[in-house]
Amino acid sequence: MSNLILRNVRPLGGAAADILIRDGVIAEIGQIAEQPGIATEDGQGAILWPGLIDAHTHLDKTTWGMDWHENNRAAILRERIDFERENRLPLGLDPHRQSMRHAIGLAAHGASHIRSHVDIDPTHGLRLVEGVQQTREKLRGIIDIEIVAFPQSGVMVAPGTVELLDEALANGCEVLGGIDPCGIDRDPKGQLDLLFALAGKHGVPIDIHLHEAGELGAFTMELIFERVRANGMQGKFVISHAFALGMNDHLRVGKLIEEIADLDIGIATTGAPSATVPSVKRLREAGVRVGAGCDGIRDTWGPWGLPDMMDRARIIGMKNGVRSDIDLRHMLDIVSQGGADLMRLEGYGVTPGCKADFTLLQGQTIGQAVVQPSIPPLVVKTGRVIARAGKCIVDMP
Amino acid sequence: MSNLILRNVRPLGGAAADILIRDGVIAEIGQIAEQPGIATEDGQGAILWPGLIDAHTHLDKTTWGMDWHENNRAAILRERIDFERENRLPLGLDPHRQSMRHAIGLAAHGASHIRSHVDIDPTHGLRLVEGVQQTREKLRGIIDIEIVAFPQSGVMVAPGTVELLDEALANGCEVLGGIDPCGIDRDPKGQLDLLFALAGKHGVPIDIHLHEAGELGAFTMELIFERVRANGMQGKFVISHAFALGMNDHLRVGKLIEEIADLDIGIATTGAPSATVPSVKRLREAGVRVGAGCDGIRDTWGPWGLPDMMDRARIIGMKNGVRSDIDLRHMLDIVSQGGADLMRLEGYGVTPGCKADFTLLQGQTIGQAVVQPSIPPLVVKTGRVIARAGKCIVDMP
Ligand SMILES: [Zn+2]
Ligand SMILES: [Zn+2]
Repeated sequence: MSNLILRNVRPLGGAAADILIRDGVIAEIGQIAEQPGIATEDGQGAILWPGLIDAHTHLDKTTWGMDWHENNRAAILRERIDFERENRLPLGLDPHRQSMRHAIGLAAHGASHIRSHVDIDPTHGLRLVEGVQQTREKLRGIIDIEIVAFPQSGVMVAPGTVELLDEALANGCEVLGGIDPCGIDRDPKGQLDLLFALAGKHGVPIDIHLHEAGELGAFTMELIFERVRANGMQGKFVISHAFALGMNDHLRVGKLIEEIADLDIGIATTGAPSATVPSVKRLREAGVRVGAGCDGIRDTWGPWGLPDMMDRARIIGMKNGVRSDIDLRHMLDIVSQGGADLMRLEGYGVTPGCKADFTLLQGQTIGQAVVQPSIPPLVVKTGRVIARAGKCIVDMP
Repeated sequence: MSNLILRNVRPLGGAAADILIRDGVIAEIGQIAEQPGIATEDGQGAILWPGLIDAHTHLDKTTWGMDWHENNRAAILRERIDFERENRLPLGLDPHRQSMRHAIGLAAHGASHIRSHVDIDPTHGLRLVEGVQQTREKLRGIIDIEIVAFPQSGVMVAPGTVELLDEALANGCEVLGGIDPCGIDRDPKGQLDLLFALAGKHGVPIDIHLHEAGELGAFTMELIFERVRANGMQGKFVISHAFALGMNDHLRVGKLIEEIADLDIGIATTGAPSATVPSVKRLREAGVRVGAGCDGIRDTWGPWGLPDMMDRARIIGMKNGVRSDIDLRHMLDIVSQGGADLMRLEGYGVTPGCKADFTLLQGQTIGQAVVQPSIPPLVVKTGRVIARAGKCIVDMP
């Protein structure tokens, strides 16, 4: 909870101003006089933006900083899941060390909050959650981490998982995850009924992975809509990926989006370049909350991804055919305010009274800041400088 | 035409070796003894790869290094073309200065050759070609530039263009371009008959932009096939973009690809993230020559793109759903040997007798070199070091 004066920054890309932070909260924006005992930083005219939000990632999976993981398997989704579960230990994928690397990378690139799905399965029990919980403790004050209890290997097809999810929610996981009730679990009614019962018991929101495309994913969405309505879970459900919304049927997708807006279901997108993805513009026009995430980065599933939400904004922007500066700004909103809306963060923003979580961005305009890969000159978390020029004050293990 | 000893590099990602270059040509690969009068460079174990090839770009268009071009037009293709033509002069888009910036950027990121389409239209005549030709002269020995006489504004709908193309081909343009004979020119027979006649007259190959998607693009391809066969242009035709090959009809696309392979037509892809693009894997399996390009970067059409073929390899890889190391290597092949195959470059490669055009790449493996954004430590053109750590020996104007 620090005090700080940040001079010569452009809040949200506007006119240059100074920012006074007291006790980790923005106290004043304008022309700030010297204050005895308060450190000063020079923002050198950079754009000031609220902390970036990775609203969908997997801190327990990355091979970041390890030897390159050679992958010549031609694996479908189910096989990738099984390979990972069976090879975590032999590969030396330590969930605490790897989640530290991943989260520190995100912080150094301007993120202030992470929603991480973490695998829970009968092979590893809660070991992976515990590793990420250790990281959450160690990085308190650097970056906030929210944990989704995530049944990566399935619920119905992986006996023992329900009990583990139950235990995880009793022990500090804030959100309940799920995955492809048809594609992975082969029993959509079974998985969804269990998830809603568990979420009800613990009073937590649900954030489900839905890779199911086309009519299959649309069917699962309809089952979700029925249960959100029946269980009063409006505003407490997120669909991650939602590839079905990328299907080539304008009217059908419109009807699905209408219900999503009506039930205040959030969408987390990754802009997956080779998949059918929801149009973020269409979701915005319908008033749907949309956040974004890096998803898995450089893991046993695939080599892509960086711990960098600005890189993700570019991927989503290119995939969505964005060209105009207005739409570029929308990409930046998705990786910031949009994620905060998904996670229901309080005190988020750049006005007096908000938490002093922000990043500086380089660029003449917001459009350029989005398009041009660069390193944030300064990242501030509750008023404390936690990274400079891409280097976090906590070293990667 | 320099001499050089490059020590401790990994040619094509293999075992570490030294390279002896004499008169700009690779003389020997192995363990090289000191040679009086020949400078030595330490490759520090980096991967050595032949010079990258940008087989499809537009050197005359970028706003790189200028003030950020704010774009809030909701323009279709035809409108983007017209806006650009009418605003080049007022915006101060100098074709020589801007093509210098663009080409130097590519060279600094490891490219040795560029095929650049350059706009030819009745408004600007051959002014843009002349600007790029100046750049070609100034950058001789730094990067090779091939110019495509490109009727960006159309042929049939822009009277006077045919005469300008004719003049351009008589004055040093090596390739004839074309664009969407249906979509832009509204007269596919008209444009294609003219292009084939002009190419025949000057004995040059054709490289046509084909954004036309689905059945429209397939129709145009069929018209092209007929004329390639009738005019004996096998091996001398490239289709750039070829979005129709990304349509969702496996059998139809298969038939088109069969003809493309049969007629030895090359494909230049950009992996356009928001379009339907050809599957590079399917094209490779059919034996089709495939190169890649950055296309326009940061121009009045749109903000995306970097003068960096490794960035393009990543975009194409993500769009094509690449995960395995074998396929990552394929992405690197497309931006190097694939482009050389499209441009029919001689002496390209990393064996004794080849021209000493190469770049060093950072990465434990080829897969990592492709996935991890980085700056090439050293770029060599005909045996001369022309860039170090992203800085070219020629300054950007
Ligand atoms: Zn995920
Ligand atoms: Zn082009």
